[in-house]
Amino acid sequence: MTPYEIIRRKRDNETLSQKEIFYFIDEFMHGEIKDYQMSAFLMAVFYQGLNEEETLLLTEAYLRSGKTIDLDHLTAKKIDKHSTGGVGDKVSIVLAPLAASLGVLVPMISGRGLGHTGGTLDKLESIPGFKVTGSIHRFKKQMENIGVAMYGQSEFLVPADRKIYALRDVTATVDSIPLITASIMSKKLAAGIDGLVLDVKVGNGSFIPKLTRAEQLARSLIRVGQAFGKRVTTYLTSMDQPLGCKIGNWLEIEECLDCLNGEGPRDLVELTVELTSEMMILADLEKDPSEAKKKCYRALKDGSAMEKFLELVKFQGGNVDTLLHPEKMTPARYTKKLTAAKDGFISHIDTYRLGMGSVYLGAGRSHAGSKVDPQAGLILYKKIGDPVKRGEVILELRNNKQAALQEAEVQLKNVFKIQPTKVPIPRMIRKRLDQI
Amino acid sequence: MTPYEIIRRKRDNETLSQKEIFYFIDEFMHGEIKDYQMSAFLMAVFYQGLNEEETLLLTEAYLRSGKTIDLDHLTAKKIDKHSTGGVGDKVSIVLAPLAASLGVLVPMISGRGLGHTGGTLDKLESIPGFKVTGSIHRFKKQMENIGVAMYGQSEFLVPADRKIYALRDVTATVDSIPLITASIMSKKLAAGIDGLVLDVKVGNGSFIPKLTRAEQLARSLIRVGQAFGKRVTTYLTSMDQPLGCKIGNWLEIEECLDCLNGEGPRDLVELTVELTSEMMILADLEKDPSEAKKKCYRALKDGSAMEKFLELVKFQGGNVDTLLHPEKMTPARYTKKLTAAKDGFISHIDTYRLGMGSVYLGAGRSHAGSKVDPQAGLILYKKIGDPVKRGEVILELRNNKQAALQEAEVQLKNVFKIQPTKVPIPRMIRKRLDQI
Repeated sequence: MTPYEIIRRKRDNETLSQKEIFYFIDEFMHGEIKDYQMSAFLMAVFYQGLNEEETLLLTEAYLRSGKTIDLDHLTAKKIDKHSTGGVGDKVSIVLAPLAASLGVLVPMISGRGLGHTGGTLDKLESIPGFKVTGSIHRFKKQMENIGVAMYGQSEFLVPADRKIYALRDVTATVDSIPLITASIMSKKLAAGIDGLVLDVKVGNGSFIPKLTRAEQLARSLIRVGQAFGKRVTTYLTSMDQPLGCKIGNWLEIEECLDCLNGEGPRDLVELTVELTSEMMILADLEKDPSEAKKKCYRALKDGSAMEKFLELVKFQGGNVDTLLHPEKMTPARYTKKLTAAKDGFISHIDTYRLGMGSVYLGAGRSHAGSKVDPQAGLILYKKIGDPVKRGEVILELRNNKQAALQEAEVQLKNVFKIQPTKVPIPRMIRKRLDQI
Repeated sequence: MTPYEIIRRKRDNETLSQKEIFYFIDEFMHGEIKDYQMSAFLMAVFYQGLNEEETLLLTEAYLRSGKTIDLDHLTAKKIDKHSTGGVGDKVSIVLAPLAASLGVLVPMISGRGLGHTGGTLDKLESIPGFKVTGSIHRFKKQMENIGVAMYGQSEFLVPADRKIYALRDVTATVDSIPLITASIMSKKLAAGIDGLVLDVKVGNGSFIPKLTRAEQLARSLIRVGQAFGKRVTTYLTSMDQPLGCKIGNWLEIEECLDCLNGEGPRDLVELTVELTSEMMILADLEKDPSEAKKKCYRALKDGSAMEKFLELVKFQGGNVDTLLHPEKMTPARYTKKLTAAKDGFISHIDTYRLGMGSVYLGAGRSHAGSKVDPQAGLILYKKIGDPVKRGEVILELRNNKQAALQEAEVQLKNVFKIQPTKVPIPRMIRKRLDQI
């Protein structure tokens, strides 16, 4: 068994054994297998894939590389939610405190912005003082105290995924269902969950535009989760337009506050409630989905979800005052409003370009390690199906760097398509899967 | 243009431009593109291939990475020969001085043993004192003085190929026709040749067992050579049994001395003469192939090829006395003779296993940098088609490490197949190609 032989076997579409997969990941972590061998292996996996058993073993190999968080002493069920990423997808920030306020334990490990999509951690960090890192000990303490935590992947948690993800990111090997599966599931499993609700995004603002491929990923995720004895439900949901109306870190926090105050955009609230109610069901807190949803709406209306959110922010060092008085935050220095070129109905939104536009504005990173502008972003005044008049504002750009604003303005021309006839509002939930 | 984007484009089978290919190789040499990105790129090329234009551009990018040897001031034609590698393939060591003795200039850049195959440089180094490295200045001086040089690839000559080959070797990306083509042709072109005779090996002792694939490689090599304005002839020759009867570094030198003394095994002499006569034709020294062959046989018989070989060895620091009196060399300490299990005719030889057997015995390297045993190797007493009696010696093992000898003995059982009925002697030259 040599690194060469394992690469060659995968290259030729042979099936790897447990011993080979564990050896390859272990020795990579020990530095015996080099980056260049791993990246050749990853590219071979990109082309040949991994079968179910191999995908499971890779997930296990990732898990073995680090520590896991043991939450067994907490008797309530630990349920997490994960989205494959989209534009304006801020669901986690409402859902986590909402679910926790209803008795679900939510040990959430979140990510940074990636490509054209925003990241939960970047959004949370736009709350002054909010910290997304901490020891496993602190994470556990927080779970015991308030039942919800939103952390980044620490260096102890699935280091193999961190190291391999960094390679995939620069070698064009991200877009592989078995590699995505192992990366997502190992992190979730390491956080000590009992169940998981997955939101696989489909559409022109998703990493996976096509429904068939999204469904393959969904099944792969369910398969691995269930093989580890976890309850997993996957939703395939539309990312053919941004979720809600705001894109950008602090802008999205504002929109989450609207939701937690019992308001907020309909699509965002509906999806959040759908996914949260599913978490309640997986946590055995509720059997009837419509009952669960009712409880969710109530917790959003009566302030209990908001109360939990403030607890969460406080526990992680954030300034609660800015959330109670968001009007006190210094707004972005520059703004620019784009208007409709003609009368009609919004028929199409290029969501990918909106996401990239917000990155240019400063809401995301053009290269690893660069700083984000918490105030930068976009506000949508219209969404698909909305009627619009010529000259009416449809999009607002905000940031603190004028040159980038001008560049973004050019790039964001024509991201909205307008047609003369009525357009149906697209369905948000495309499919729900809980079995493979 | 980013490294990521170039990898992704090749991954998705898009065609790369000159700018992209030059950028990728140049920046790799400057350290801006990392090993792990190169190896992902190489694996993508393994799967997607390169088209004719891209292969040409890659060869050019390799060439640009280093110095080239300018031999334009020498008026006679510079012709090299290259073999894709086989077991017992010692042709170069006879051919280079033979061709030079007939007026061809032979600026030969040779390689080390690779996998189950031996390397010309390792064989030459079994001659005490023989040096295979030196400056470009010295190489040119040698060409001016004696018209033949046999050097290894120095660090100045096509460094991109050296660096990339080292990666391919450990990432299972060697077996790719465009990558093989760029690697071979860039080195040959850098040595300042006018023409090239290529010997592409086919059969169970070759890197390319199948004729169709060998022919693809042949055409790819011819195409690139001709695009650079060189005359290229390619032979597809059998490697279904070792060439000659001796395998191992000094053993092969002995067999070369036999050839240069006008003797030697028929298959080895015939192939050497065939390829040398082709070099004479490419060098415009002869038009009629049968005339050229006659001159070759004469130069082997009358000692002029041997005289040139001794000049070559002397110029490169080798001890000429050991070649004139090979019986003075200390023989291998251990020998073992294997015998036939039954009467019949040799019908099949597992050439790959014979090659690996000689590596185990010490004639090759099990890992980069390990030392070879110049005396270790194998002697075949029978070849395909030969009649054999039960108990008759068919194979002799030699080396200086008893444990390895015993291991090799086990592995070399049954490499010869014997059948009761007569077997035709296989054809050596399968095909000759000089146009695409």
